[in-house]
Amino acid sequence: MKHNFGAGPGILPHEVLKQSAEAVLDLNGTGLSLLEISHRSPEFEAVLNEAVSLVKELLNVPEGYSVLFLQGGASLQFAMVPYNLLPQDKKAAYLETGVWANKAIKEAKFFGTPVVVATDKENNFKQIPKNYEVPSDAVYFHVTSNNTIYGTQLHEFPKSEVPMVCDMSSDIFSREINVADFGLIYAGAQKNMGPAGATLVIVKNDLLGKAERQIPSMLNYQMHIDNGSMYNTPPVFAIYVSMLTLRWIKAKGGVAAIAKANEAKAKLLYEEIDRNPLFKGVCVPEDRSVMNVCFVMEKPELEKPFLKFAEERGLVGIKGHRSAGGFRASIYNALPISSIQALVEVMQEFAEKNK
Amino acid sequence: MKHNFGAGPGILPHEVLKQSAEAVLDLNGTGLSLLEISHRSPEFEAVLNEAVSLVKELLNVPEGYSVLFLQGGASLQFAMVPYNLLPQDKKAAYLETGVWANKAIKEAKFFGTPVVVATDKENNFKQIPKNYEVPSDAVYFHVTSNNTIYGTQLHEFPKSEVPMVCDMSSDIFSREINVADFGLIYAGAQKNMGPAGATLVIVKNDLLGKAERQIPSMLNYQMHIDNGSMYNTPPVFAIYVSMLTLRWIKAKGGVAAIAKANEAKAKLLYEEIDRNPLFKGVCVPEDRSVMNVCFVMEKPELEKPFLKFAEERGLVGIKGHRSAGGFRASIYNALPISSIQALVEVMQEFAEKNK
Repeated sequence: MKHNFGAGPGILPHEVLKQSAEAVLDLNGTGLSLLEISHRSPEFEAVLNEAVSLVKELLNVPEGYSVLFLQGGASLQFAMVPYNLLPQDKKAAYLETGVWANKAIKEAKFFGTPVVVATDKENNFKQIPKNYEVPSDAVYFHVTSNNTIYGTQLHEFPKSEVPMVCDMSSDIFSREINVADFGLIYAGAQKNMGPAGATLVIVKNDLLGKAERQIPSMLNYQMHIDNGSMYNTPPVFAIYVSMLTLRWIKAKGGVAAIAKANEAKAKLLYEEIDRNPLFKGVCVPEDRSVMNVCFVMEKPELEKPFLKFAEERGLVGIKGHRSAGGFRASIYNALPISSIQALVEVMQEFAEKNK
Repeated sequence: MKHNFGAGPGILPHEVLKQSAEAVLDLNGTGLSLLEISHRSPEFEAVLNEAVSLVKELLNVPEGYSVLFLQGGASLQFAMVPYNLLPQDKKAAYLETGVWANKAIKEAKFFGTPVVVATDKENNFKQIPKNYEVPSDAVYFHVTSNNTIYGTQLHEFPKSEVPMVCDMSSDIFSREINVADFGLIYAGAQKNMGPAGATLVIVKNDLLGKAERQIPSMLNYQMHIDNGSMYNTPPVFAIYVSMLTLRWIKAKGGVAAIAKANEAKAKLLYEEIDRNPLFKGVCVPEDRSVMNVCFVMEKPELEKPFLKFAEERGLVGIKGHRSAGGFRASIYNALPISSIQALVEVMQEFAEKNK
């Protein structure tokens, strides 16, 4: 029995994996594999429609927004957002909360002027900056809701007068959000929504068409909206598995129920980190992520032995990101609380042996 | 038993589907699904390395070329090719052999000046233009090797003094090619190489860095080369299935053996089309595709009854593209000759009933 704490591509619900494997052999008794059906077939159109409907239902997406399934991950969105929204002579505000925010800023420079409103870079991104001004002439304000590498999270989204753009790659569907607070939300699927290879975009339609530039078709949100995410062959399998994962979230009681379970999981783990004398948390407590729990050891020389100890007990993926060090337990939606209990027990057992 | 003549996403080898389904449940006995392992894990790095090696081996890719697995399909390549290769004040030559070539031309206009050297548009692309001049000051010459919708194929690639760029989406790995004749080759996976969601690019390194413009990271071939197709999270599953499909091609005897089998399959079907008084081919015989066999009926009123007759006998996906009409049998690598025999028998049986 493995406990998968990997940061992403991360754990998916067991029943989703089982159903996905079945569909690879035979989709709904059609006699054909999911991998060899036409994306224009009624079978796949039903899958895509259900995926879009589930996104709208689970996040209460209001009228006036479009839901797209694209390719290229959040990294392609770093460029598509300014390509579509930022005129060359205008500026966009960015909150720099880690490497991913930083990459988004870098790509915006190809299209206009990104302005960093605040950063905690000098502290290696241990906290979310709080007091800053967003220039009122910025065309959008970009934030990263959860910082996978550093284990910080925006628990309250800033109030913004300019449209807010949010990279939610590592916490979408993990908690309730008010979509109307955002102009555009994007997320790579491979943490809470499905496998690598699909990207979710939720965009307010009236933000589009104002960038005053020609946009190549595949990079143009309006083109994808006009074609219902079928401008070209979509990533059929990744969308199918995402649809199954969204069904699973709904069956669990929706995002509110999932959020409650996630809070309980995070609480259990952070309490052990704070209680156990061998370990300590990395981030400022008020900004601690409910998705990625980063911690180090009081005695750094014990980190290698602890990693080995944990791996021998079936804990996978707890090594921290190379730029942050220590440990990171990613505790996405599909991770059961029993896996957190297993980690806590391993921490306690290791502490007992190393008193 | 279904016979899958779908144009793509198309048929994949049965053993590839079986192994893919197993990996979705448990990858190589790791206790983890292929969908929930890190793309930085040794397991996935081995998959990507093997996929790249198999491409190089099966196509005899010479030194000086890079092999990439990207996202976004051929449609994103329509933009990436000129973004990376075509300076704003220069021209590129395009051979217009169908809708896909046309879309490539449209995207090139965002980046420079595409020049159409020849077209057969007025004949609805029933043949491949042969006599044309490629301007010697074009920075590249773009061709589409096989035209899925119309059923034509370039059996001999033109000699070109400027670097040739080729969209091989629908016939890559179906026949031997000389990679050294091309500056850049690209192909969406979903016909002969794997499922939708991965795109193969083979690019001659010394063509890059000359477009005299800044290129966003995800659209920059050099960035993907520098990061070994791992600039961001790659489409893990689609690459894995592609790797298995490439293994299958190798086990079959490589591209030469596959090509021989494809020739035999196409011959069997075209002979029946030419022999059977109810049917006739659409394209000029010398340009007929070995991958997509397009045909119509002498009496158009029999087309609907024939389609029904064929579908009742387990033949899937033979309806022609909406812009071409009639029938199209896509007979990709993984389609066994027994499926062609089944189609020929259905054609004969139908002719017998409609004498």
